[in-house]
Amino acid sequence: MSASYRLSEIAAQFGGRVLGDAGVRINQIASLEAAKPDQISFLANSKYRSQLASTMAGAVILAEQDADSTELPRIVSDNPYAYFARVSALLNPLPEVKPGVHPSAVIGAGARIDSTASVGATAVIGEGASIGAHSIIGEGCCIGANVSIGCRARLYPRVVIYQECEIGDDLIAHSGVVIGADGFGIAMDQGRWIKIPQIGRVVIGNDVEIGANTTIDRGALDDTVIEDGVKLDNQIQVAHNVRIGAHTAIAGCVGIAGSTTIGRYCRIGGSAGILGHLKIADHVEIAAFTLIGKSIHEAGSYAAIFPFSSAEDWRKNTVHLRHLDDLVKRVKTLQHEIESLKLKS
Amino acid sequence: MSASYRLSEIAAQFGGRVLGDAGVRINQIASLEAAKPDQISFLANSKYRSQLASTMAGAVILAEQDADSTELPRIVSDNPYAYFARVSALLNPLPEVKPGVHPSAVIGAGARIDSTASVGATAVIGEGASIGAHSIIGEGCCIGANVSIGCRARLYPRVVIYQECEIGDDLIAHSGVVIGADGFGIAMDQGRWIKIPQIGRVVIGNDVEIGANTTIDRGALDDTVIEDGVKLDNQIQVAHNVRIGAHTAIAGCVGIAGSTTIGRYCRIGGSAGILGHLKIADHVEIAAFTLIGKSIHEAGSYAAIFPFSSAEDWRKNTVHLRHLDDLVKRVKTLQHEIESLKLKS
Amino acid sequence: MSASYRLSEIAAQFGGRVLGDAGVRINQIASLEAAKPDQISFLANSKYRSQLASTMAGAVILAEQDADSTELPRIVSDNPYAYFARVSALLNPLPEVKPGVHPSAVIGAGARIDSTASVGATAVIGEGASIGAHSIIGEGCCIGANVSIGCRARLYPRVVIYQECEIGDDLIAHSGVVIGADGFGIAMDQGRWIKIPQIGRVVIGNDVEIGANTTIDRGALDDTVIEDGVKLDNQIQVAHNVRIGAHTAIAGCVGIAGSTTIGRYCRIGGSAGILGHLKIADHVEIAAFTLIGKSIHEAGSYAAIFPFSSAEDWRKNTVHLRHLDDLVKRVKTLQHEIESLKLKS
Repeated sequence: MSASYRLSEIAAQFGGRVLGDAGVRINQIASLEAAKPDQISFLANSKYRSQLASTMAGAVILAEQDADSTELPRIVSDNPYAYFARVSALLNPLPEVKPGVHPSAVIGAGARIDSTASVGATAVIGEGASIGAHSIIGEGCCIGANVSIGCRARLYPRVVIYQECEIGDDLIAHSGVVIGADGFGIAMDQGRWIKIPQIGRVVIGNDVEIGANTTIDRGALDDTVIEDGVKLDNQIQVAHNVRIGAHTAIAGCVGIAGSTTIGRYCRIGGSAGILGHLKIADHVEIAAFTLIGKSIHEAGSYAAIFPFSSAEDWRKNTVHLRHLDDLVKRVKTLQHEIESLKLKS
Repeated sequence: MSASYRLSEIAAQFGGRVLGDAGVRINQIASLEAAKPDQISFLANSKYRSQLASTMAGAVILAEQDADSTELPRIVSDNPYAYFARVSALLNPLPEVKPGVHPSAVIGAGARIDSTASVGATAVIGEGASIGAHSIIGEGCCIGANVSIGCRARLYPRVVIYQECEIGDDLIAHSGVVIGADGFGIAMDQGRWIKIPQIGRVVIGNDVEIGANTTIDRGALDDTVIEDGVKLDNQIQVAHNVRIGAHTAIAGCVGIAGSTTIGRYCRIGGSAGILGHLKIADHVEIAAFTLIGKSIHEAGSYAAIFPFSSAEDWRKNTVHLRHLDDLVKRVKTLQHEIESLKLKS
Repeated sequence: MSASYRLSEIAAQFGGRVLGDAGVRINQIASLEAAKPDQISFLANSKYRSQLASTMAGAVILAEQDADSTELPRIVSDNPYAYFARVSALLNPLPEVKPGVHPSAVIGAGARIDSTASVGATAVIGEGASIGAHSIIGEGCCIGANVSIGCRARLYPRVVIYQECEIGDDLIAHSGVVIGADGFGIAMDQGRWIKIPQIGRVVIGNDVEIGANTTIDRGALDDTVIEDGVKLDNQIQVAHNVRIGAHTAIAGCVGIAGSTTIGRYCRIGGSAGILGHLKIADHVEIAAFTLIGKSIHEAGSYAAIFPFSSAEDWRKNTVHLRHLDDLVKRVKTLQHEIESLKLKS
């Protein structure tokens, strides 16, 4: 299926030091446990070093400190995990784009689709939209009027982008993604909610990936902005006028409320949340399931996870949370009483 | 792009007291920070009053107590935020509906589509469905058999409504919304789950908005009901047989379990949850990230957020939660011992 | 609408002991509160026994211990809830499948669609895919290349399955489900994220149901696996290389991080989360809103819910959580001081 490469050819392309038989042929990548003799594996964490003894892999990618832990043909790299990613991309090239517009697609007036781009079956491209070179618009995608999409985009089936949004190069958007829906803007007036028109856009930089069923709302007045290199997992909700800084990575099911600005190189764990109108500094790590309710001005790790236990223990301990203030007061009283007793004794 | 209006024309239409030059022309709305001289801005919160000094806006909407805080042409309103919403709607009218059914749409036998309605490319309308006057069914929407949709609905691309559901007037449903999928009804029988047919419907009142990728399940036996004026943000999950009272607003990623009834004019924060078979009174506010596990019988604000801190502090403090019951017992023991000591001293 | 059945006919088909008039005719199932004289209801929980007095139902399904609580015609069953499910399925048969491919569907080269299967309007079936007997592919579904779907599948409109995934018999997948999108695999290299190709598949057993807008990512190297009889509610996120054991049921909005293995017959409450690379034993129950951060080796119930209260009480109590370690230390100090005082006294 895949082409095969000698270890020496791989190292010639990606660097690293080869130890052992550089002529071994590799045609796929696999975990240490599952690898076969024509496959290469990797050790990204010395903790799993013991698996080297039993792996059937034909070769291994590993770090300097693990270089002598096996006799197998191997490539020594500064960053085995990234090296593995590159080798995997070599062995698993993306399917070739077949340029052209499927006859069942519906193309609006004035849309500009690069001749090297591909538009899948039943996709709908709005009036005045533009699709850059080598981009793939998957089956059933709906691209709104005047949307601009850069080069080499890969939109999987059923992505929706609302009108006027602007997308850089190399976007990957998975199925069910919705970009540019109205933000949640309502004003209460005499017992009824009035809708606030959402007249901003979503502007997305280069090299962004967006997971399945993630939603990014358009801005109320100004734009919602996703900077270069941001990676979003599935089912994330990004509200209107949020800005996510370059190279920030966010795990699944996170919710980010309106007008919050997140810095660069942040990492946010699954199902975390960030309230609205906050600023999060660069290089902030937020644990899974943690709600951030105030701005964070310093890089670092933050958490707010309630620890789980057996339901029985949980019940026994948790009942006191509703009386914590009382407990603190009792302890204060005890301190005073002991001070008095000490004076007397 | 937009038409322009004199301040006097705006006040003639929406009320309010004009101060300063009523002849200034306005063609767009913007924030105080971003507004240009042909744009109007607003001050909804006196906290931001200082921004009035530096804004380039041509006019401002503000409240009585801020009326004298600027020399700019201005409209004084009881509710500047709602006023701003109205002016924005005036300046940003919805695109005109082009009535008619796109040739690529698929219309089931017996479907009744009002002649003023619009059905987009690749949309599918089921047998016996009815679409009211001036409604827009976006590209790729799937409307099930015998669904009834009222007037002036705006369904964005790829909304799905399952068979038999009933929708009032003025629905806005964003892309990826699923209305009427089966509720999660299963019964364990001899080691296997049996599916419980979900034979209720979803019934939605007038003037409801539903955000992208939100799901509302059909009832198991009776209907799931969304009353008039309810506003739902993105990625909300509404389980079977829930009832949401009129004019309640719910932020993104909230989950509401089966058969729960929520009152009128409630406000529920992002990623909150409500367990099943509960009753929530009118005018209840629930904080973000809060799980409601019991019925709430009184209006008011409720919360259950675990406070975040640096991961280090979090670890140090949180370890004690698993021993809270023990701590409380120790404090009780101390109290007894001190009582004894006091008697002796 | 529905056919009608005598109580005796129902009991002949599903077993159970009939008490009272076995000739009463039933054409629908309903709750005790809503049932009419030509409908059957059920009592699954003795707690609601008092509703028997006022129900208008023509017959009731109940357990042995409630058999004498009413004079109504009734069927006594070991498992009234499962019995009700079966009777409901009898009274509410699925609409008949109309075999054939809608003319607007797009079928890839080499796809094998069983002659008894149905492919809806605007659906897209990829090259080499196979659709088993009596399966229904709903409107607008996109089935990727070489996907294999077994018999009697019911895919509601707009389900997406990516290439190469393998699905057993009797799958029910609701609208917006995405199966096989790329897992969230990225490696940081010199300030940029590199994508790790996701070359595994999703493999789904028999008799699985998947709720609206749920996403199941394909494996990074090996497969993501959903075993037989698993039931997933709406908006669940299943990350790459997760394995969910047979007959496990998961409520809405749950997130499961990568490479976690969940046992058989587990029950996971709404909006719960499980971190990555964990093992959860069979027969584990996890409460709603609970994050599981370590492997669970023993069957049982686990919880981590922060208890809600009025916002005022919450503020008062919760502020102390950030000083819990300090409180514990103060209590320890008090214990020492009291020990000293006791020695002296």
